[in-house]
Amino acid sequence: MPILDEAIEYISAHQEAFIADLRELIRIPSISTDPERKTDMQVAAEWVAEHLRQRAFENVAVMPTAGHPVVYAENLNAGPDAPTVLFYGHYDVQPPEPVEAWTSPPFEPTMRGENLYARGASDMKGQVIALIKAVEAWVRTGDQKLPVNLKFMIEGEEEIGSPSLEAFIKQERERLSCDICISADSGILDANTPAITYSLRGMAYFEIHVQGPSKDLHSGSFGGAVHNPAIVLSQLIGGMQDAEGRITLPDFYDKVRPLTEEEREETAQLPSVEAWWVAQTGAPAVFGEAGYDSNERTGARPSLDVNGLLSGFTGDGAKTVLPARAMAKLSMRLVPDQTPAEARAALETYLRENAPQTVRWNLVELGSCNPSIVERDSIAVRAAKKALVDIWGKQPVFIRQGGTVPVISQIQGILGVDPLLLGFELPDDNLHAPDEKLHIPTFFRGMECFVRTMNHLRGPR
Amino acid sequence: MPILDEAIEYISAHQEAFIADLRELIRIPSISTDPERKTDMQVAAEWVAEHLRQRAFENVAVMPTAGHPVVYAENLNAGPDAPTVLFYGHYDVQPPEPVEAWTSPPFEPTMRGENLYARGASDMKGQVIALIKAVEAWVRTGDQKLPVNLKFMIEGEEEIGSPSLEAFIKQERERLSCDICISADSGILDANTPAITYSLRGMAYFEIHVQGPSKDLHSGSFGGAVHNPAIVLSQLIGGMQDAEGRITLPDFYDKVRPLTEEEREETAQLPSVEAWWVAQTGAPAVFGEAGYDSNERTGARPSLDVNGLLSGFTGDGAKTVLPARAMAKLSMRLVPDQTPAEARAALETYLRENAPQTVRWNLVELGSCNPSIVERDSIAVRAAKKALVDIWGKQPVFIRQGGTVPVISQIQGILGVDPLLLGFELPDDNLHAPDEKLHIPTFFRGMECFVRTMNHLRGPR
Repeated sequence: MPILDEAIEYISAHQEAFIADLRELIRIPSISTDPERKTDMQVAAEWVAEHLRQRAFENVAVMPTAGHPVVYAENLNAGPDAPTVLFYGHYDVQPPEPVEAWTSPPFEPTMRGENLYARGASDMKGQVIALIKAVEAWVRTGDQKLPVNLKFMIEGEEEIGSPSLEAFIKQERERLSCDICISADSGILDANTPAITYSLRGMAYFEIHVQGPSKDLHSGSFGGAVHNPAIVLSQLIGGMQDAEGRITLPDFYDKVRPLTEEEREETAQLPSVEAWWVAQTGAPAVFGEAGYDSNERTGARPSLDVNGLLSGFTGDGAKTVLPARAMAKLSMRLVPDQTPAEARAALETYLRENAPQTVRWNLVELGSCNPSIVERDSIAVRAAKKALVDIWGKQPVFIRQGGTVPVISQIQGILGVDPLLLGFELPDDNLHAPDEKLHIPTFFRGMECFVRTMNHLRGPR
Repeated sequence: MPILDEAIEYISAHQEAFIADLRELIRIPSISTDPERKTDMQVAAEWVAEHLRQRAFENVAVMPTAGHPVVYAENLNAGPDAPTVLFYGHYDVQPPEPVEAWTSPPFEPTMRGENLYARGASDMKGQVIALIKAVEAWVRTGDQKLPVNLKFMIEGEEEIGSPSLEAFIKQERERLSCDICISADSGILDANTPAITYSLRGMAYFEIHVQGPSKDLHSGSFGGAVHNPAIVLSQLIGGMQDAEGRITLPDFYDKVRPLTEEEREETAQLPSVEAWWVAQTGAPAVFGEAGYDSNERTGARPSLDVNGLLSGFTGDGAKTVLPARAMAKLSMRLVPDQTPAEARAALETYLRENAPQTVRWNLVELGSCNPSIVERDSIAVRAAKKALVDIWGKQPVFIRQGGTVPVISQIQGILGVDPLLLGFELPDDNLHAPDEKLHIPTFFRGMECFVRTMNHLRGPR
């Protein structure tokens, strides 16, 4: 039996065990944003490191950073003539809140139908396990050698904007040097439509604080005489988007790279029509920037969202308080060639021009990331395309993804390679939301795709 | 020594003991809006009842209602020729949140300088104790008889809008019949300026819920393609008040009774100039309806406030969620002759006309109360004026208060008497806010005022 076929058969024979391992990793609540989960973060990193160590990896290390550690591992047995591939992933997850909205507990992986439900199942513990198991399939069959030299860099801060990773990559530039980089933190269009992502949005995430009175007041005694900070914040936020879905911050669109005619034609052929977006979101109707469809609005156009609002009394019942403060978490998704610094400047200018003198305000930056766009005809892209066709029997579509993976622009800048975005998250996987899930058939197809991509990259570079 | 002087001397001699009793009552966290405090509510009611029982009251009862019980008690020993006075108060308090903003624990009364700090110290356990101790001063001195027949009605739902009291007053109309009613849930201008309140604002309190997507979404995958419900809610709220401080709800001001020339002149003479309002609130500047000063804005003009805002992720750090829902608690203070039903209709019309089709919304009413305005030259008002002059040495000012005491309009309607609003809360007592406090010298002056008012009401009606 050819070595490739042996590896693929190994996957078929070990499905149960692979899911069991995935469940084990998911049960560790590695929520990077939660200071109380620091120990769980370490436990998750050690779990991944140990799993790699037992699968013929060397120089496995849980490497400290200013924040959560990075798991590094390598297997360079393919020899100097084979290309070196750097696999990127992350072991941290989003918080599960609101927990009461989950059908089953977020950190108790539960199979329903073809899906495994849990926080991190798809984003991206499922993708990380698929990568590691693809490697296991190679090293435990055939000549026990990988067809390429392989390095793993699995970070623990992706869900909080990868604040420590850029310094880490700069410091470990030698160790991380590679010919090809594959990030598995991306998705395909649906279970039957393979895709390769060539662009990601960047992000600028802020908290806006508005303070009116120095303390909470009685709304009877004082209502009418002071500017309510929650109303002021509402007016500021309300003015940031017009009725046509356009963001009104000054000069916000100046650097947006327009879609080419070719890209607009590709987008128009994507299967997700507006009815699909309504079904996916459950919203009464789609809404966004006039002149673009939903694929373009999420992939190629910037957006602005309120991620959280808090002011005054929010418990049960009525409390007649005139709150001293109001807070919004607000983020923008940016597209090439916008920068987070320019987005922040636009927001600051807007607030300076529009906030009344009756309140004080301040802006706190909670994370930022450049957008990225990569070469569509590299060796890596060609190998992945071939692997996808092998499995799905059709050409992948090229898509721009609306999400943000900070490492992509950092790898481009520091390591000088254009990462290939090859992951298998599905649009209905409820990423960052209650009832996140992993589609198990897609999980195994993704694993096979990693096996085949490595095979197609085999040989002298 | 005349009986009156004996009673007043009794107060001087028992200050320590009276404060100790007040502390005891304050320590019971009788938060009417909190379902977990149901037992504490009962304990507080029983405490008040027992306290009255031991001070020559008869027919003392903790009477059930659909909600929290009402404490009733009477002392009718003054005889059929003396007038019957109904004293109104409440034993419930506002929630203490945010607890971390308190200098000392909210239910551990703490003396600092001339003030006793605790939730309910001024609003209104301090006022209730002042009433009871004024009675005690009469019944434990002189001929041990009150100069008037007295009934107490101390309810437990004032801070949640007195939902059960109207039915209670209707049902107990006979028992509560009186010639004069005095509500002690009001205040004076400052420790040196006695006042009588002749008008109170009403209230209409709502929750507005906006739902966009059916579940929380990833702001990367979906941001730009669906209407963010927190932005929609912000736009709806932001549009309710214009830059001149006017409320924009349709027909909202139609029924507002204009201030008379005489009232505007009185208001202009009030000591609280704009600098006072800035100092009281700690806001950078006052703000309100153009054409009125802060006293008029809070006393004689309606207001609209957001009391709470909640959407999405509000914990520490960054969560890139596009929230499914956003909620605002919103209340209006109403003035004669507005009604809560018309205020609700105005809000509903506004939402219907302005909410986009891209979201669903609904309105929940959490409480409502009519505004009230009373006769300024009654027997009760004259007696109180005399008592205030006795103590402060100057005429009280007549004020409209911005707060809401639902029972006032109910007593007017059902029992047919115009309640006298004679209470001693101070504007800087931090009602409904952290560090609520009671000014102890004013507490004792108020107590003496109740003693003297009863004395001036003595005699054949």
